[in-house]
Amino acid sequence: MITKRKEYNMLTLDKVYHAKYVLDKVIRQTDIISAPKINPESNIFLKTENLQITGSFKVRGAYYKISQLSDEERSRGVIACSAGNHAQGVALAAARSGIRSVICLPDGAPISKVEATRSYGAEICLVKGVYDDAYAEALRQKEEKGYTFIHPFDDELVITGQGTIGLELLDQLPELEAVIVPIGGGGLISGVAFTLKSLNPDIKVYGVQAAGAPSMFNSVHDMKKERLESVSTIADGIAVKEPGDNTFKYVSEYVDEVVTVTDDEISAAILALMEQHKLVTEGAGAASVAAAMFNKVPIKNKNTVCLLSGGNIDVTILSRVISRGLLMTGRTYSMNIELIDKPGQLMDVARIFAQLGANVISIHHERANEGSDVNGCYLRITLETRNYEHIDQIKKALKERGFKTV
Amino acid sequence: MITKRKEYNMLTLDKVYHAKYVLDKVIRQTDIISAPKINPESNIFLKTENLQITGSFKVRGAYYKISQLSDEERSRGVIACSAGNHAQGVALAAARSGIRSVICLPDGAPISKVEATRSYGAEICLVKGVYDDAYAEALRQKEEKGYTFIHPFDDELVITGQGTIGLELLDQLPELEAVIVPIGGGGLISGVAFTLKSLNPDIKVYGVQAAGAPSMFNSVHDMKKERLESVSTIADGIAVKEPGDNTFKYVSEYVDEVVTVTDDEISAAILALMEQHKLVTEGAGAASVAAAMFNKVPIKNKNTVCLLSGGNIDVTILSRVISRGLLMTGRTYSMNIELIDKPGQLMDVARIFAQLGANVISIHHERANEGSDVNGCYLRITLETRNYEHIDQIKKALKERGFKTV
Repeated sequence: MITKRKEYNMLTLDKVYHAKYVLDKVIRQTDIISAPKINPESNIFLKTENLQITGSFKVRGAYYKISQLSDEERSRGVIACSAGNHAQGVALAAARSGIRSVICLPDGAPISKVEATRSYGAEICLVKGVYDDAYAEALRQKEEKGYTFIHPFDDELVITGQGTIGLELLDQLPELEAVIVPIGGGGLISGVAFTLKSLNPDIKVYGVQAAGAPSMFNSVHDMKKERLESVSTIADGIAVKEPGDNTFKYVSEYVDEVVTVTDDEISAAILALMEQHKLVTEGAGAASVAAAMFNKVPIKNKNTVCLLSGGNIDVTILSRVISRGLLMTGRTYSMNIELIDKPGQLMDVARIFAQLGANVISIHHERANEGSDVNGCYLRITLETRNYEHIDQIKKALKERGFKTV
Repeated sequence: MITKRKEYNMLTLDKVYHAKYVLDKVIRQTDIISAPKINPESNIFLKTENLQITGSFKVRGAYYKISQLSDEERSRGVIACSAGNHAQGVALAAARSGIRSVICLPDGAPISKVEATRSYGAEICLVKGVYDDAYAEALRQKEEKGYTFIHPFDDELVITGQGTIGLELLDQLPELEAVIVPIGGGGLISGVAFTLKSLNPDIKVYGVQAAGAPSMFNSVHDMKKERLESVSTIADGIAVKEPGDNTFKYVSEYVDEVVTVTDDEISAAILALMEQHKLVTEGAGAASVAAAMFNKVPIKNKNTVCLLSGGNIDVTILSRVISRGLLMTGRTYSMNIELIDKPGQLMDVARIFAQLGANVISIHHERANEGSDVNGCYLRITLETRNYEHIDQIKKALKERGFKTV
């Protein structure tokens, strides 16, 4: 039987310690890993919540919330609305607690996420429409069937559960000076900032949002809670239109600064984490690293933790991020080469690539496009290259032998 | 000053404990992570040496070897030959020990690996030719300049360093019953098997090789050391033509069974580790998981550790592994559709994809290929699909509207 607490009107350190006691039997205390190359002017560590069970930190808040339900509430079960990490967190937390869970999702949700949530033991309720429709349906079922609704972020018990990461950080890195935390609805940073600042107000807490979903960023800037019309970012885990009442309050009080990062910066961070640290992160999970890499926050010479909030990225998207990253770092290159339409031209070009060690990924050879001479044709070529210098060598060699590239 | 031992004619547990004492200040004690989905009939854990500093276990053996050099040997420095993990391990170990290191590589070695090795502080010596040429050059320089040669596997001190993983495993998972270890030259499994069997002979130790580089597999089977003419596998870290004298002896004595896995099985394991566990592994690193996934070893109901030996995979190759994995699991699909060459056909096809929620990745539309009717043309299409069932729906819908797919 899990210990319960009676009163929860507001966060206290005492409650965060209690949550840690409850969670320690269920979740992983994820490693922190030194990451000196992310920002050479700082002393960066990664808190690997992407390696948490269910692939994100969300299970902490969900499990603690569920652990504090009364026997009567437990017997009725819980309901949540999410197509992502929160769904999986609630599903697993409920299963481990031996109670029923229902997750409402919009019917267009990715099959992989639906299946992952089902595999943790939740009943899936697919709702026609978008997220807001699924949310309305979850609230309707809560009223009708008496489920407890588990909010993804704006709930003091959920926030308390996320706060346990703050305690772990101080345990793992007592000399901690700054932490960078991704913000969607703000549950994670509320718990972490409250915990750290309560124990050591000198620790800086920075929040990061995607530039395409800056709801908390705008709200903090304007000092009032604001709702976005729409959101658009690769970091779907933090694409939230509006902060919570509680989280807005905590972020305003405890967070030193909120900044934004672009999708290209997030992509670069995802790639750096894969290449340098062998870690898969989702867009939201890599946002903190993007902020450190691109100097969005003042962390020079500071022992800084970037919180990797999760790793549940679709491999299709990961594949695109890699492709874009390779292109941006000169490791693949696409170009059009104009040829004269006579035999031997393709061989000449192929010889240049072979001599310079460029590996051909794809070739399209076409005649008679409108832009070229009537006798001309062109090759659309994609190559594996070493770096920008290598690309320049190839372009130079083509030019020297009379080929025009566009 | 690091404690040194005087005599090293053969492995003893005592020496492995000493190596652990020396290494604990330098390397990471990497996590083990529960991985129930890898093989539901077993109880699988992952030892994440892909998250070790330098991205592989190799730094353990290299650092311990270097720590045991005499002051005179230290003053002359060390030399090694490798284009991979051993190079980075030696470079980092030498830098941390404050001594000079020279790494010989064949001049065709991937730029990324050369740069990584250089970044850890080694002097790079590019040698014209292949691995064997670089090896010969390293031995030549060792004679000429008095460097100590650090062998990648067939060295008792190197093997002793790798054996520290065995001690960590027993510490992290006292109820350990089986361990699966990739084999290239055999240094890692020699150290781990010796350590585990010495402490608990009931623990099963299984070795895995790539089917395209089965040098130890063949040697153990034929009970004599054999050399392969050539090797070919995605797992370049274990593509070794011949076991060492020492490692062949230790594997023959301490390893229960050596098996092989195919490149497709390794690719599936790499993808599973990324999707389910957010871990990037190289081919060699995923080979142990491939053996567990595809039931190559008898681990039913056993607490089994798969040793993820390293994560240094080129993202270009990773990208190819993902593409192939998506194709094999029905998440992308390519087909040719024959059209009649008249307006409106492309729109009809596009409508089917839109209605069934298939995302178009690429389309090539061509007329007049030899195989089609003179009025015909065909579309070469690649789609993002959900699974094989989804693909069947799409094919059925195309057929119903009179399109022929090939």
